[in-house]
Amino acid sequence: MISKLIPVAVLGATGSVGQRFVSLLDGHPWFKVVALAASDRSEGKPYAQACRWVLSDPMPAWAREMALVPATPQAVSGAKIVFSALPADLAKDLEPEFSKAGFAVCSNASSYRREADVPLLLPEVNAEHIQLIRQQRQNRGWSGCILTNPNCTSTGLTVALKALQDHFGLKRAFVVSLQALSGAGYPGVSSLDIIDNVIPNIGGEEEKVEWEPRKILGSLGANGVDFAEVQFSAHTNRVAVVDGHTVCVSVELNEPVSPEAAVRALNAYQSPASARDLPSAPQPVITIREEADRPQPRLDRLTGKGMTTVVGRVRTDPLFHIKFVVLSHNTIRGAAGGSIYNAELLVKEKLL
Amino acid sequence: MISKLIPVAVLGATGSVGQRFVSLLDGHPWFKVVALAASDRSEGKPYAQACRWVLSDPMPAWAREMALVPATPQAVSGAKIVFSALPADLAKDLEPEFSKAGFAVCSNASSYRREADVPLLLPEVNAEHIQLIRQQRQNRGWSGCILTNPNCTSTGLTVALKALQDHFGLKRAFVVSLQALSGAGYPGVSSLDIIDNVIPNIGGEEEKVEWEPRKILGSLGANGVDFAEVQFSAHTNRVAVVDGHTVCVSVELNEPVSPEAAVRALNAYQSPASARDLPSAPQPVITIREEADRPQPRLDRLTGKGMTTVVGRVRTDPLFHIKFVVLSHNTIRGAAGGSIYNAELLVKEKLL
Amino acid sequence: MISKLIPVAVLGATGSVGQRFVSLLDGHPWFKVVALAASDRSEGKPYAQACRWVLSDPMPAWAREMALVPATPQAVSGAKIVFSALPADLAKDLEPEFSKAGFAVCSNASSYRREADVPLLLPEVNAEHIQLIRQQRQNRGWSGCILTNPNCTSTGLTVALKALQDHFGLKRAFVVSLQALSGAGYPGVSSLDIIDNVIPNIGGEEEKVEWEPRKILGSLGANGVDFAEVQFSAHTNRVAVVDGHTVCVSVELNEPVSPEAAVRALNAYQSPASARDLPSAPQPVITIREEADRPQPRLDRLTGKGMTTVVGRVRTDPLFHIKFVVLSHNTIRGAAGGSIYNAELLVKEKLL
Amino acid sequence: MISKLIPVAVLGATGSVGQRFVSLLDGHPWFKVVALAASDRSEGKPYAQACRWVLSDPMPAWAREMALVPATPQAVSGAKIVFSALPADLAKDLEPEFSKAGFAVCSNASSYRREADVPLLLPEVNAEHIQLIRQQRQNRGWSGCILTNPNCTSTGLTVALKALQDHFGLKRAFVVSLQALSGAGYPGVSSLDIIDNVIPNIGGEEEKVEWEPRKILGSLGANGVDFAEVQFSAHTNRVAVVDGHTVCVSVELNEPVSPEAAVRALNAYQSPASARDLPSAPQPVITIREEADRPQPRLDRLTGKGMTTVVGRVRTDPLFHIKFVVLSHNTIRGAAGGSIYNAELLVKEKLL
Repeated sequence: MISKLIPVAVLGATGSVGQRFVSLLDGHPWFKVVALAASDRSEGKPYAQACRWVLSDPMPAWAREMALVPATPQAVSGAKIVFSALPADLAKDLEPEFSKAGFAVCSNASSYRREADVPLLLPEVNAEHIQLIRQQRQNRGWSGCILTNPNCTSTGLTVALKALQDHFGLKRAFVVSLQALSGAGYPGVSSLDIIDNVIPNIGGEEEKVEWEPRKILGSLGANGVDFAEVQFSAHTNRVAVVDGHTVCVSVELNEPVSPEAAVRALNAYQSPASARDLPSAPQPVITIREEADRPQPRLDRLTGKGMTTVVGRVRTDPLFHIKFVVLSHNTIRGAAGGSIYNAELLVKEKLL
Repeated sequence: MISKLIPVAVLGATGSVGQRFVSLLDGHPWFKVVALAASDRSEGKPYAQACRWVLSDPMPAWAREMALVPATPQAVSGAKIVFSALPADLAKDLEPEFSKAGFAVCSNASSYRREADVPLLLPEVNAEHIQLIRQQRQNRGWSGCILTNPNCTSTGLTVALKALQDHFGLKRAFVVSLQALSGAGYPGVSSLDIIDNVIPNIGGEEEKVEWEPRKILGSLGANGVDFAEVQFSAHTNRVAVVDGHTVCVSVELNEPVSPEAAVRALNAYQSPASARDLPSAPQPVITIREEADRPQPRLDRLTGKGMTTVVGRVRTDPLFHIKFVVLSHNTIRGAAGGSIYNAELLVKEKLL
Repeated sequence: MISKLIPVAVLGATGSVGQRFVSLLDGHPWFKVVALAASDRSEGKPYAQACRWVLSDPMPAWAREMALVPATPQAVSGAKIVFSALPADLAKDLEPEFSKAGFAVCSNASSYRREADVPLLLPEVNAEHIQLIRQQRQNRGWSGCILTNPNCTSTGLTVALKALQDHFGLKRAFVVSLQALSGAGYPGVSSLDIIDNVIPNIGGEEEKVEWEPRKILGSLGANGVDFAEVQFSAHTNRVAVVDGHTVCVSVELNEPVSPEAAVRALNAYQSPASARDLPSAPQPVITIREEADRPQPRLDRLTGKGMTTVVGRVRTDPLFHIKFVVLSHNTIRGAAGGSIYNAELLVKEKLL
Repeated sequence: MISKLIPVAVLGATGSVGQRFVSLLDGHPWFKVVALAASDRSEGKPYAQACRWVLSDPMPAWAREMALVPATPQAVSGAKIVFSALPADLAKDLEPEFSKAGFAVCSNASSYRREADVPLLLPEVNAEHIQLIRQQRQNRGWSGCILTNPNCTSTGLTVALKALQDHFGLKRAFVVSLQALSGAGYPGVSSLDIIDNVIPNIGGEEEKVEWEPRKILGSLGANGVDFAEVQFSAHTNRVAVVDGHTVCVSVELNEPVSPEAAVRALNAYQSPASARDLPSAPQPVITIREEADRPQPRLDRLTGKGMTTVVGRVRTDPLFHIKFVVLSHNTIRGAAGGSIYNAELLVKEKLL
């Protein structure tokens, strides 16, 4: 489909999500990394020297010697797409500069997710929301654009809810997460805070989980996204897991359904056509585990190369209608892999 | 208050809850252990030899050389109270034999919790339910009795809910637990199942958590306990924590209340008078942590010598009314310490 | 090289090493699994039902429905090679039955490692020792044979020592292991024994580590293996790591050498020619990590698909000559992968 | 013995060792904390607000409201002893200022341990070395003094070696540590570096462990300490344990001894008389665990309130003479508790 590789850059390349971008872009069939950007003090250093690599997959050979550049449009001028793993405060200032300068910014940062003309995108859920960037370019006079993917806990949750929404309608959901350490970056959570322990709060996370799915599950109208009516309550917790967020969900639908019907809907769920055949499309979108004690992060997080949403323990909820457990890989589907999937949709939709 | 120590025995003394009984009874002001009972194959062995001690407090000196006896009324005949840390299937057969033979059985097993004439007791919540044993003795012709304490996850949850029920009424609650490993006994959970992992199910636990608080929070009527009207939905998870169950709770009350009002109710909560001055009474019953990220099991489980219920993150729930986090020590307040507290109430009420 | 796939069976297929055999044999270029054997009570059950799968790679599809057979020569008669993941006591009785019946037994069990006519084999170290099976067949009148791979801690240690032995000679070594949980099988180590803890002993392990390298590093003479003169002292510890044994080693050589010379010898090390081009041959045999804090099990255990020995921190030892750290994947190179590598050498040497 | 409490201050009070000082000084029979000092940006804040408390014992009530002062002699002028939990670089500059100003500095920092006139003190081993401060005061013209305790890994190791040295003489020792996370302070080790992992290096630690015991085990001569002749090789590792360093030791003595004789020597070991009856003196100095798999950090670290050195697995070493495992609480005996014990000796010897 792609005759020539599209040049891309990674902003915030030395952090834990940045590293995941580098790892997932290694051998990508459409994209070729031409620049890795990091904070000023790393400028000029080879990536292998400036970066404390925390992934168990080895650092790609091409990345080792690549000299780090600053996170400016000039410094990454050879790229057409920039993947942003910047912290939210930096992203807020820098991402618009890049989109103004003509880059497509595929961002993992939360800074622009709430803007009315910025797509908050899970291609297997709301691929059509990408059309918002036409409006975004018109509003802001940008030749580039900003495209965001949701928070890592919102991600798997929303994929599962979409399958239920389509069949049964959604009213309310209780959501309690048991989140992995890699979601906090590196060095992130101190070991003294998590060995033999749980941290029953993650700053700012509950607000995101209660808000983001409503935009993603909304429908695209003339004036942007009409938010889905569903309401959420979230409790977010940190646990001693390296990768993979586990989420307990209780859902009120428009009417009671049997667990079997819910499982059928989850199993049958398909991406919108435009999002199906992309290199990073999850295969399958959702996997159902039948065992009584699955999904588990260590065993299931790499299902579908870390892009599949894994659901288990679908059963009747005594208060609402259905309860279940969702597992999603937080730095693949929930971060770097999600941004890359978004970029692939952008290319396919000829919006680059 | 007690002029002579009351002789007691522990059934299932070598298991992890049995060990906690031995540890907590060391130096108890009212009780003196006269027999430790375990399975037949340990009979006659010194406790120190038969028992793989897993607590960080050292095994009491008096226990080390005590020869294990079988779990029969004859073998523990010097005791008046037996503390049962038996597995549910054994407890089902053995506990009635003991109560028939005149022993007061203070049981941590689930076998008789649902019987109409068996108290399911948290003295700081429903001390008056102990009166059920008059009915029990009449019904069954026992000179002894069976007294039970609830499941370890129900325990802290129900204490916190009681304070809210008294002030605001209770309608519904969502409950998601992150439970410690010691709750599964020893050897219990395999290390390969929990390092870098979460197990999103604990067999039989959700049913207990959805049922037990309704009996405990019920009122004692002429015909036994009138169950509380509150309804529950529970998700129970195992996490890599040694001791201390963390529970995320969202509660629907009779009407909206502010988090401040909820905190006041929790802070002001007092045990029924009869349960206050007992040796194991929690001091205080409930502690509120004000920090954004507390309670945490490693830091807070030993509050009030492990008998206090610790509550934090009290805030408005977007779907119901109030949400918060509860922490309770699962083998102290939620198991052995709870049974001992029950026994103390029995003595105080002159029902032994 | 192989025109037709060789039929193989796995004994003890449901355990943690058995699972690793199934996983590594999936898609093997030479071997095809025709039978999975387990204990009697699993007989007839589909593998997916009888086996609690603990690997993060999914169970291969062909294995899911394969009905388990008993571990008898009759039940696996279609196979030519049997891979044994049996516990040592069972292996002691059963493996000779299989070799008598004509099967080549590639065993991970310790039962026959010390027999003078049984090869204790690491193909990248002592490939020529496989010739011992000629003597074995003659001695015992077997048409099949037994071939063993060493203990998981001996494995990486001995590969590294071989490179030093070849250049500098070996006299003595101190060895302290920090071993992974998967080495104890499933359920193996209780979580209560290892969370926030270390177990400073592994039964029987120190004797193996002090003995096995002497046989492997020995030379094949007319009357079997002449043991290497090197002497060992081992301390073995269990730590909270899923996979990957870390070993601290201090070595006395025939004379002092610089760390640089030791690194050169380790880096230059090549397998004997016959062991080089086999499907499971480690690529490379040894990798040197230059960082101050590597190798680390989580980051380095999958080097060379888990078959490579990773060495780091090579430095001068104040008492002996050289000290360093070795990491090796205990269930791949140190167990199932090692047995498969041995079987490949057997085929290549036309000794099947 | 003490008619009036001696006023003391803690420097670096908000760090993890600083917190341990605050906890151990709570209710101390001789000392009363009159000032808590921390970095400038915390100045004036109440301790409870400036400090992220990581201990499971609650923060003492008197400390909660104490306003932090800067780490200057003026700011803590009410104190006579200052306990230093400063980082080594700050300690280097600040500790001499305090001793010049007349304070007795009992320091946990490594900065002055190697100075010839500074005692490196374990009272149960080398109480007489405290006499070095007479020389120190003369040399430097200080009215105060600096007294140091060794590195946390050197501590338990040296106590155990002292018992062997006294009976059998010491020549060489191999030492491999498995160290707890609290030794790295807070936030210290990132959780991503230690969950499912080992870090096989701790910067600067091996040099300390190879050097410090030689000074502590040396004898006090006219010109300072004559170092013990023993030589060391150390490997230091970080593992996923909260508190308690485990150390594997192989020792060459002057001649072979049986494990039984070594156990007798360890069991019989007594502190020098001057160090015996101090409030923090370990009771007993050394405990021997007879079990095959002890000591273990989670179960044994609080032996003797965390001041006792626990030894186990005493057995014959195939290369040297004796091998064994030592466990010591790294932030109690190995840090804050050690400094306090030193201060008690100073008072008893009337050197304050």
